[in-house]
Amino acid sequence: MLLILFTNMDDSRLYSTRQPKIYAILCAMADTYIVADIGGTQIRAALFPSYQTTPVKIVRTSTQGDGQEPLERLLNLIATIWPVSDRVVAIAVAAPGPSDPYEGIVFEAPNIPGWTNVPLKKHLQERFQTLATIGNDANLAAMGEWRYGAGKGHNHLLYVTVSTGIGGGVISDGKLLLGVRGLAGELGHITVDPNGPMCGCGKRGHLEAIASGPAISRWVADEISRGVPSILSSRVNFSAKDVAWAANENDLLAKTALKRAGTYLGIAFADFLHIFNPSAIIIGGGVSRSGSHLLVPLRNALREHVISEAYLEDLVITTAALGDEVGLMGALALAQTLA
Amino acid sequence: MLLILFTNMDDSRLYSTRQPKIYAILCAMADTYIVADIGGTQIRAALFPSYQTTPVKIVRTSTQGDGQEPLERLLNLIATIWPVSDRVVAIAVAAPGPSDPYEGIVFEAPNIPGWTNVPLKKHLQERFQTLATIGNDANLAAMGEWRYGAGKGHNHLLYVTVSTGIGGGVISDGKLLLGVRGLAGELGHITVDPNGPMCGCGKRGHLEAIASGPAISRWVADEISRGVPSILSSRVNFSAKDVAWAANENDLLAKTALKRAGTYLGIAFADFLHIFNPSAIIIGGGVSRSGSHLLVPLRNALREHVISEAYLEDLVITTAALGDEVGLMGALALAQTLA
Repeated sequence: MLLILFTNMDDSRLYSTRQPKIYAILCAMADTYIVADIGGTQIRAALFPSYQTTPVKIVRTSTQGDGQEPLERLLNLIATIWPVSDRVVAIAVAAPGPSDPYEGIVFEAPNIPGWTNVPLKKHLQERFQTLATIGNDANLAAMGEWRYGAGKGHNHLLYVTVSTGIGGGVISDGKLLLGVRGLAGELGHITVDPNGPMCGCGKRGHLEAIASGPAISRWVADEISRGVPSILSSRVNFSAKDVAWAANENDLLAKTALKRAGTYLGIAFADFLHIFNPSAIIIGGGVSRSGSHLLVPLRNALREHVISEAYLEDLVITTAALGDEVGLMGALALAQTLA
Repeated sequence: MLLILFTNMDDSRLYSTRQPKIYAILCAMADTYIVADIGGTQIRAALFPSYQTTPVKIVRTSTQGDGQEPLERLLNLIATIWPVSDRVVAIAVAAPGPSDPYEGIVFEAPNIPGWTNVPLKKHLQERFQTLATIGNDANLAAMGEWRYGAGKGHNHLLYVTVSTGIGGGVISDGKLLLGVRGLAGELGHITVDPNGPMCGCGKRGHLEAIASGPAISRWVADEISRGVPSILSSRVNFSAKDVAWAANENDLLAKTALKRAGTYLGIAFADFLHIFNPSAIIIGGGVSRSGSHLLVPLRNALREHVISEAYLEDLVITTAALGDEVGLMGALALAQTLA
C-alpha cells in the first residue's frame, strides 16, 4: 500500500485565510499469490489477491512436450499473469508425482517425459525473485479441502483420492504431514490383503491394487472372462465410471465390484482412524462419485473394523467439495503458509 | 532461586571506619518435575530436577486394589517425594489403557478394577496445585525414546511395542501425534490380513492378532495340536519368550512362528513408512527381544513391501533403549512440554 500526499501549502501563502488542503493519491499495491497446477494434460496458473479466494486471473497451457519445454511454458504462463503494480508474496505449484517439498524438487512427473529431479522451486525463485514452494497434488488437495473445501475447520483430516491410483494427504494438528523426506501420506500403498492382486507399484495387496478405478474395472473384466454375466460383457473396454453406471442399472456384477472396493476402502479407513484419529476423511477422485454402491459398503466395513465407537463419534466422511480447482486452491493454501 | 541479603549496616555505625559488609545466604529453589508410571503391578513415582535426567528420588507402591484405593496410593506416593524447598513445575503420569490426554481422563486401566473415566489430571491439580498432564503408556514410551532413548534426534519417529498387545506412539515433526480425541497411534490395530485370526479387540486380522506375544504362542500351540513337532510340545503352557528360547535351540516350529510374526510386522512397518516417512522406528516390548529370528524376517518383509528405496535410505530400525524406566522418562519428556 503506497500513499502519496500532496498539500496546498504553497497556495496557502497566497490565500492566507484558507486552510491548507491535503490531496491524497492512493496507489493500492496489494499483496497477491500466484499458484499453478501441473496436470496430466494442462498447466493452469492463477493470480489471487491476498484478501480473496477467487482468482482475478486464470490462464492455461498444454502440459505436452519433453523436459525443458513444459518447464519454460509454466514459467512463461506465470509471467503472463504477473501483476504490474502489486506485490507477489509467494508462488506455489502443485506438481504431479513424487517430489521433495523441502528442497522443491520434482522427482518425476507422469505425462512429462524427461522431468527427473527438476529443481522447480529454484527455477521459480531465480526467474521471479520471490518466495516459491511446491507440493504433490494429493497433499495439496488435502490442503485445499482443509482450507477451502469439505474439511474446513478440521485440523485432523485425511484426504483420500480414489482415481487412476489412490493417493492421500494428511493434515495432522493443523499441519500437512510430510515426513522426513516429504514422502508421507501415500495412503494408497498400505497392504489390505497380503494375498491380494499386484499393485501398479510392483508390490502385492495394496489398497490401490483393489480399490482404484483401473483395479475395479479389471476385476469386473476378469469376472466376465470367467463367465459371470454383466451388462458390461458386450463392451471391449470399460472404466470404473462404466462400472458405476452399470451398478446404477442394477447390474449385479458391477454392484459386487463396487461393494468389494468400498469394503477394502472401509478396512483401510479403519486403519487410518486407529492411526490418526481424525475428525474428517474427505474422499476425492473420480471413483468417489460412484455413489452409494461404493460408499454404503465403505461405511459398513469401517463400522465393522473400527475398534471403538469413539473414533466415529466426531467423524465426518464426505466427498471432496472443490472439483477441478482443488490443485489451485491447495497451492493457494500452501502459498499462504509462506506469508 | 531465592536470595536473602543481610548487611552489617548497624555494625558500621559502631565501627565507622569499616565498609558495610553484605552477607548473602543463597537458598537454591530449583525447578523440578514429578513423574509417575502406573504399571500393571506397581506404581512408581520419581522426582527430577529440571537440569538432569536422572531422578533424585524414586519410590514405588503396589497397583493392587479397586478404583479409589490405587488413586489415593498414587497421590500419597507423589506427596512422599514432594520437595521441601524446590518448585514443582509440572506432574506427568503415564497411565495404562486408553485416556483423553487433553482433558486428562483415564477411560479405563487394565488391572485396576473400577478405574473408569478417572479425571486423573484434575485430581493431581487439586491435590498439588500445580500443572499436571497424563498420557498413555505407549505414547509416552515414544516420547521417552525420542527424547532420551534410541530415537534421539529423530523428529519423525515411530515407537512400536510388541508385548501382550501391540501399541504405538508417533512423533510427527517433533510432536506427539494425538488426533482429535487423543486416540491416535493405535498401530497394533491395523488390518494386515482381513482373513487373519481374531484380535483381542474383537476385530479380525489386526497386526496384534498375529504378531503379539500371546498370538505367537497361541499359533505355536495350535500347530503342535495339529501334530507339528516342537521341543515345546511337552509344555502345558508357554509364552512367546519360550518360543524365542526354542527358536534359539533351533526348533523349526518356533523359528517359523517368529518368522511369521516378523513378516507381518514388516508388512505393517512398510505401511507406516508409506504413511509417515519416518527416520526411525523403535521396537519395544518383550517380543522385540526375540532377536534375529524375528528381526531378520521383519527387515526382509519391509524391504519386500516398501514402494521405494527412498523410504529406507534415512531409516533407522532399532530396539528400545530405555527398558523399564521408559514410562518415567516419557512422562518426564511430557512434563517438560508444559514448562
